[in-house]
Amino acid sequence: MVAGIVGLGLMGGSMGLALKSIPHINRVVGYDHNPTHCDEALKHHLVDEIVSWEQIKQSDVIFLAIPVEGIIKVLEGFTDLSPECTIIDLGSTKEKIVENIPPQIRHNVVAAHPMTGTEKFGPSAALPDLYRDKIVVLCNLDESGEHQRKTAWSLFEAIGMKIVTMDAKEHDRHAAYISHLPHAISYSLANAVMAQEDAKNILILAAGGFRDMSRLAKSSPIMWEEIFKQNRSNLLEAMDHFEEELKRCRKLITDGDWDGLRRWMEDANKLHDIL
Amino acid sequence: MVAGIVGLGLMGGSMGLALKSIPHINRVVGYDHNPTHCDEALKHHLVDEIVSWEQIKQSDVIFLAIPVEGIIKVLEGFTDLSPECTIIDLGSTKEKIVENIPPQIRHNVVAAHPMTGTEKFGPSAALPDLYRDKIVVLCNLDESGEHQRKTAWSLFEAIGMKIVTMDAKEHDRHAAYISHLPHAISYSLANAVMAQEDAKNILILAAGGFRDMSRLAKSSPIMWEEIFKQNRSNLLEAMDHFEEELKRCRKLITDGDWDGLRRWMEDANKLHDIL
Repeated sequence: MVAGIVGLGLMGGSMGLALKSIPHINRVVGYDHNPTHCDEALKHHLVDEIVSWEQIKQSDVIFLAIPVEGIIKVLEGFTDLSPECTIIDLGSTKEKIVENIPPQIRHNVVAAHPMTGTEKFGPSAALPDLYRDKIVVLCNLDESGEHQRKTAWSLFEAIGMKIVTMDAKEHDRHAAYISHLPHAISYSLANAVMAQEDAKNILILAAGGFRDMSRLAKSSPIMWEEIFKQNRSNLLEAMDHFEEELKRCRKLITDGDWDGLRRWMEDANKLHDIL
Repeated sequence: MVAGIVGLGLMGGSMGLALKSIPHINRVVGYDHNPTHCDEALKHHLVDEIVSWEQIKQSDVIFLAIPVEGIIKVLEGFTDLSPECTIIDLGSTKEKIVENIPPQIRHNVVAAHPMTGTEKFGPSAALPDLYRDKIVVLCNLDESGEHQRKTAWSLFEAIGMKIVTMDAKEHDRHAAYISHLPHAISYSLANAVMAQEDAKNILILAAGGFRDMSRLAKSSPIMWEEIFKQNRSNLLEAMDHFEEELKRCRKLITDGDWDGLRRWMEDANKLHDIL
């Protein structure tokens, strides 16, 4: 089986490394519109070969590891594929992508969201174990062809992922709270702190807490611009709920209601029981 | 030299482990008003011995590793100390503590804030290397006695810390942005997400991002209630600035100003140059 990867950054590059280690893949070929990415991907052995757009479309399975607006555009151009071809999109939003798959290739596509990543990006950020023991959410799987479902399932299992299925609309609502909102908060925190504090004091006072809370603010703006765009209404709703909690916190502090504040923090501590 | 530690949780317990490993400390004694903490501290060998309140006051150096309101109360009761005794408070706020040191023992006290910690608490959370290679901020050092300054400086160096000096008022303003605000945000995020999402979906979709952003929400409510209380006005100001950035983010998304949003995220990326 030949696997093609479109987009050789953190997610695509790491997928190349993962696929190269499993037996049913004979060859991993890659495509990236950025020539520097192609060079780096070869240098780090993320793929066996860089191929042309025409050649990548000949792969048995094609992973789309590009920003989510790009995924929709690429799918629109995939009208001359073999009926057996499996396309797996790795986008962080799912509803808009699934809605926009051209009907004639709907059975070719498996919509996937691997719950993994780092704040780093580009081919040099690729990690061989990025996907291992992580969860991948497969959306609206009944709309994919049987061959494609089986192919995707066995590949994700082979690289060590745990598979969960979910409706695309539901996925996007949950992802807004659990992934996209934290990114919006982290970007806001980084900008607020850098506007008020100089680099020296940030370096002195940033213990683990601030480092963790601001790590996501280092993420790729191009990637996140498109995620925020595609999941706009869910994200705005999640921001509403977060702002309500922040207002509650502010009111407890302003009112000097320290017992209330402690109880509110004890509620947050219940996260211990989940994560 | 005998070191006494008041409060045998994460900070005090880890200080016990660190002090036991350096040559100029002959004995580390501990005090905690919670008998379970005393038992655990002995079990984990955090201190050599648990002693009475009268005995802890005989130590050559006394570390106060208790919540910040407790530090003020304990200092008020320290009126019968030897003039040579060094008291080092490890509180996360500094202005209120320094203001409230009784004048007759002002020279005894060194106000310190070690920039380290984890979200865990209690004696079992203690780590031998919690302080190693971390920064400790010493505040208003010129108000401490010469002997006490030298004692504190040499002890922090001996346990591997990097020493920075700062005015207490300045410290609290910076800490509000870089440490206290991130905690308020993390508690708010945890409560917002748990109100909207069930445990199953949080577990499925929480990749590294949400785990990092919600980690601080597991911190001790008793400790943070008192920090928020003591640093209230600085924290409220920091929350204002954060809310402005979040509003900016929301407006860019609402207006569909994707170029503006990307540039705003690129600004946040500049954190890369600092941390």
